[in-house]
Amino acid sequence: MKRYDQVAQALAQRIEQGQYRVGDRLPSVRALCRELGVSVSTAQEAYRRLEASGLAEARPRSGYYVLPRPTPSVLPKVSRPAQRPLDVSQWDQVLELVARAPEEDRLLMLGRGIPDLAAASLRPLQSQLATLHRHVAAHGLNYDSLPGSLELRRQIVRLADKSGCLLHPDDVLITTGCQEALSLALRTLTEPGDVVAVDSPSFYGTMQILKAHKLKALEIPTDPRTGISLEALELALEQWPIKAIQVTPTCNNPLGYTMPEARKQALVALAQRFDVAIVEDDIYGDLAFDTPRPRTLKSFDDDGRVLLCSAFSKTLVPGLRVGWMAPGRYRDQALHMKYVSTGASATLPQLAVAEFVQHGHYERHLREMVRQYRRHRDIMIDWVLRYFPPGTGVSYPQGGFLLWLELPGAVDCVRLNEQLMGEGLHITPGSLFSASGKFRHCLRLNYAAAMTPAVEAGLRHVGEAVAALLEQEVPA
Amino acid sequence: MKRYDQVAQALAQRIEQGQYRVGDRLPSVRALCRELGVSVSTAQEAYRRLEASGLAEARPRSGYYVLPRPTPSVLPKVSRPAQRPLDVSQWDQVLELVARAPEEDRLLMLGRGIPDLAAASLRPLQSQLATLHRHVAAHGLNYDSLPGSLELRRQIVRLADKSGCLLHPDDVLITTGCQEALSLALRTLTEPGDVVAVDSPSFYGTMQILKAHKLKALEIPTDPRTGISLEALELALEQWPIKAIQVTPTCNNPLGYTMPEARKQALVALAQRFDVAIVEDDIYGDLAFDTPRPRTLKSFDDDGRVLLCSAFSKTLVPGLRVGWMAPGRYRDQALHMKYVSTGASATLPQLAVAEFVQHGHYERHLREMVRQYRRHRDIMIDWVLRYFPPGTGVSYPQGGFLLWLELPGAVDCVRLNEQLMGEGLHITPGSLFSASGKFRHCLRLNYAAAMTPAVEAGLRHVGEAVAALLEQEVPA
Repeated sequence: MKRYDQVAQALAQRIEQGQYRVGDRLPSVRALCRELGVSVSTAQEAYRRLEASGLAEARPRSGYYVLPRPTPSVLPKVSRPAQRPLDVSQWDQVLELVARAPEEDRLLMLGRGIPDLAAASLRPLQSQLATLHRHVAAHGLNYDSLPGSLELRRQIVRLADKSGCLLHPDDVLITTGCQEALSLALRTLTEPGDVVAVDSPSFYGTMQILKAHKLKALEIPTDPRTGISLEALELALEQWPIKAIQVTPTCNNPLGYTMPEARKQALVALAQRFDVAIVEDDIYGDLAFDTPRPRTLKSFDDDGRVLLCSAFSKTLVPGLRVGWMAPGRYRDQALHMKYVSTGASATLPQLAVAEFVQHGHYERHLREMVRQYRRHRDIMIDWVLRYFPPGTGVSYPQGGFLLWLELPGAVDCVRLNEQLMGEGLHITPGSLFSASGKFRHCLRLNYAAAMTPAVEAGLRHVGEAVAALLEQEVPA
Repeated sequence: MKRYDQVAQALAQRIEQGQYRVGDRLPSVRALCRELGVSVSTAQEAYRRLEASGLAEARPRSGYYVLPRPTPSVLPKVSRPAQRPLDVSQWDQVLELVARAPEEDRLLMLGRGIPDLAAASLRPLQSQLATLHRHVAAHGLNYDSLPGSLELRRQIVRLADKSGCLLHPDDVLITTGCQEALSLALRTLTEPGDVVAVDSPSFYGTMQILKAHKLKALEIPTDPRTGISLEALELALEQWPIKAIQVTPTCNNPLGYTMPEARKQALVALAQRFDVAIVEDDIYGDLAFDTPRPRTLKSFDDDGRVLLCSAFSKTLVPGLRVGWMAPGRYRDQALHMKYVSTGASATLPQLAVAEFVQHGHYERHLREMVRQYRRHRDIMIDWVLRYFPPGTGVSYPQGGFLLWLELPGAVDCVRLNEQLMGEGLHITPGSLFSASGKFRHCLRLNYAAAMTPAVEAGLRHVGEAVAALLEQEVPA
């Protein structure tokens, strides 16, 4: 074997063993020469071999970087939920997830929807908050106006422009997180007993709104690459008295897909044809890996039937509880519902976010986060392929920081999670994302924060636990 | 006339003309001697005369102070609402009040429920907020646990002890303002179409919750000194399928009364007998002028049927939106409702309030505010007696910073307010406090902040406008 082949093989082995991770820069040619005592031309040739084998890529003036593994991952299957309206259950599992105080938690939370809060590009937000709290006039401590701070609504209008939405500040209501926006939207549109069509799997926060307000969920089959099935939805609209359609079409939680633009447009047209409102959850939309960010359903809405809901909880920080909605033709009812639910939202966080956006920090932060999350996605998929049993389905997120796994067998992830919690780990079981506890063999992971050895070890441990459970399952 | 009688008369005239106001310290004996060129004994005798006439009182080692006018004020009448369940209206008027951004407002708001935000004893809160935002670890930006920060819940338990309530931190849920607590409580207890018994007049925020959730309000006659009529309530409980009783029994908004303890106890017993839940709004309770503060209904509740709702919006600042509830036996449902409504409440404001309370700033602030609000109450009642037509009914608040006026004739306060807004003034029309627009001839005033000449001039102007309207009313 030629010397450069030996060097290339050594590098490939290190990548395989995880010494260099997806997205990492490999040692420079000069460093490699020093380390292995080879000539510059040998090192260069070794890198060319590595590149040819698809393990690394050269980036001009920067060096060689580890590529995601060429092994094609298996996507989760298209969901096939029960095609009839159901009462939502699963509150106990959700409660377990949300009742915890993160700072007191000694568990490694592998699945909760929390962004990276340690990002350097967030720092201006913290100092703005401190300054505002020290220097703000009394009005910062007073009730804000009910629709929310005009400064912030102006900035939201400017941002919405990037998703193809032409809004006016009067179209926007500030809410206490996206959860309040979704809750106001659904309570504005429905009465107890009404049927709401949802994508499937679907965000558990919305599912629990349906439960609390005695609404029925009609789960529609959903493709992990293109989203809710328009064909199935059309059939459902013909068959059931659906009051609203609730979807997360961009950087979906939990599946990570973004519906193609043509399908988004068709979805709005379908809602028009059947005269149904759409509640669009866009909370991860600004974290899309593509530039410019994908359009919202709202951007295709010409008669005000889309209630767009979003927040700065995933793009900035969740603890400020700054969300917003553009409720279209339902503005008056939504404003009333907002008043009775929490009154005006807190004043100072709105002013801080408005400043952060206005001074360009938001877009800078998004660029950093999108780069980081895209890299982390590749690393985590790589780890899943390494550490989970073959046949495990893995989503391929187009944005955001959530990964969805479908295990190759009847592993009960609620029980798996109970076992893991005894060992200091926590995953989000898939059954939370269904009205009736489907997706028990699925789970959600989070790759937002630093991909530390602890996270890798935790994930490996989960993979091994899954493998052990699958083995038990095989009849002797 | 004796010289000391002349001096006493001169002082009485100055008080009458408003040169010295209720609660003001009059000039010292020495100063009076200098000013009027009289002897010490003459000045002393003049003050004794003034005291005898009930215009001033001597306070040991301090001097003479102006007393409230002995003129007995007329109390508002016991309310006689329609004794059948009603749909709530009046949203437009409420919206006008709450949609305004206080800082942009050029109106002199004489009636909104906002505490004095300029109080010096609030300053530690602002610096704590600033410090927290600068130095807090990432968890301050993260989702809090769903029930809220344990630090704050511990402090709330300590405070609740003073109102006779023995609570455990697990009994307390942090909410986004008292409005959310009330909304969660009512949504936990009812379904659309249900009947809720309320005091009358009743806080418009609660009335609008009933409206938004299609509940019916059964307004119960209410005495401006002792609160909701237990006799009328008992009849109503026999006659109607009442799901919940909603009252503000301590420092009532808008009437200012505190129900006597025995009546509070009887109210809880009545609820037990008819197996109905009580939603108790205690948001002004800590601002009672009596020490120790009055007991809550919750303190008499031995089977968990009272859902106690409160907040730091009136005692500290409203813009932080820190509220709480002790939902008794309904905790699980209330926690679920909390999750679907807004998720966890904002983290840092909770930590700041917890620190403020823990370090004793809260109780110090309360002492200051109670002293200030009691003094302001007397001044404002004095102004009303001066500037409003004879026969105007005036409440006599036992705490808080709100005054209720009943005008002596069919003045429409909604129209009065429209007129006043054109002149830079704003009052809160009484009709907001009724399901069906009763109390149109009543209005609410706020005496929290500095009683400036501008406030006095504004109030005088309102009084004159009322007099003019009453004159028009008289047939020619």
